[in-house]
Amino acid sequence: MKPAMQIPRTGIGFDVHAFASEDKPRPLWLAGLEWPGERGLAGHSDGDAVAHAAADALFSASGTGDLGTNFGIDRPEYARASGVTLLIEAARIVREAGFEIGNVAVQLVGNRPRFTPRREEAETILSGAVGAPVTVSATTSDGLGFTGRGEGIAAIATAVVVCV
Amino acid sequence: MKPAMQIPRTGIGFDVHAFASEDKPRPLWLAGLEWPGERGLAGHSDGDAVAHAAADALFSASGTGDLGTNFGIDRPEYARASGVTLLIEAARIVREAGFEIGNVAVQLVGNRPRFTPRREEAETILSGAVGAPVTVSATTSDGLGFTGRGEGIAAIATAVVVCV
Amino acid sequence: MKPAMQIPRTGIGFDVHAFASEDKPRPLWLAGLEWPGERGLAGHSDGDAVAHAAADALFSASGTGDLGTNFGIDRPEYARASGVTLLIEAARIVREAGFEIGNVAVQLVGNRPRFTPRREEAETILSGAVGAPVTVSATTSDGLGFTGRGEGIAAIATAVVVCV
Repeated sequence: MKPAMQIPRTGIGFDVHAFASEDKPRPLWLAGLEWPGERGLAGHSDGDAVAHAAADALFSASGTGDLGTNFGIDRPEYARASGVTLLIEAARIVREAGFEIGNVAVQLVGNRPRFTPRREEAETILSGAVGAPVTVSATTSDGLGFTGRGEGIAAIATAVVVCV
Repeated sequence: MKPAMQIPRTGIGFDVHAFASEDKPRPLWLAGLEWPGERGLAGHSDGDAVAHAAADALFSASGTGDLGTNFGIDRPEYARASGVTLLIEAARIVREAGFEIGNVAVQLVGNRPRFTPRREEAETILSGAVGAPVTVSATTSDGLGFTGRGEGIAAIATAVVVCV
Repeated sequence: MKPAMQIPRTGIGFDVHAFASEDKPRPLWLAGLEWPGERGLAGHSDGDAVAHAAADALFSASGTGDLGTNFGIDRPEYARASGVTLLIEAARIVREAGFEIGNVAVQLVGNRPRFTPRREEAETILSGAVGAPVTVSATTSDGLGFTGRGEGIAAIATAVVVCV
């Protein structure tokens, strides 16, 4: 079903990555940036929960599937792709499906890294990847749940697209 | 307060259902579909967290309350209603309140069922119930939290409505 | 980057506060209201997760940072500000950055307090603070996770703004 041209569509994206175990140290990639000295996230991808949630919000808004259907096991060329690479490709898929991208907003939930000093840097990289404004904010879960116990990082995103 | 006619309104919906205990087996209903062979969700309703989150996002966007206020204990006729029935009724309430529905986007968070093979089927049923595009995507929480431990399923939804 | 004038921007806000320990009783402030007889939330602020999530959704939509960057430790004048005060200030910052506010939608996740009887009262206060419609709905997490165990309260918000 196609909405009336003039009503923008919204989408939602949620992603979680566990921190890598200490005996398998990895660099931390988050929000399109490398964070030297921080514990990395697990996964065969780079574990960039912020970029992944942003991509899923774009797919969700435009009805083009999700990370799994677009970059899953039958697409081995994406198996080790960075979050930024996936986000660039997600934006391309969404535009090819006939949508203009309005914006993407992501919130990071976790104890580490301290995000604020590099927020603008992250927003510049992710906005460049999407070709539309991407904002990133950060919060903690006040010591509660898996993010509060420092087991991993969650990211929640929303996006707006318009059928053109 | 009524927003300017031309600005669409967004809403948010979150729902969680625990899996039924093994000594009280139930069928799984999720995203408007029955999932044979999968463990069901608990609750007096059918436990369809995806349909419930979608309905709550519509109520939230339009300021018409939530699942509890619309289908709560003082409305016994909804006590055993399916998720799809609740979603049809939610869309009717939202339109009756003077809103056009743009779209609804839901993301399912859980280990089971494997959602992708039936995504289009789910989207067709839920879009038909709402009378506007409903997209459904799926992810896991990477083994963390209650969804990662397989205790239940969560769904997060967002929706757009416009005052007509 | 500035989006086309005609596409509204969406934002996301998530906030969690733990309940105060029983030996340090505090009043509960939530959704702009005091809840007599209910256990309060911890934090140097009033712990109003609903107001905080709403403010973060507005910052997120407009790219004006987050609660930490706007009201953090280098702004001691906000250290003990109420959630409503922060929300009024957030709306001012967002408008000053050149945006009109469409609406804010918040969902509270928690076992307590029983929200429904005071929903309209909360929406009136928060809508007045923002100067645009703020809807608040409530749900539980079906006994799962930190909200299900009664350790704290979570709130998820989304907002729409338009560049003017």
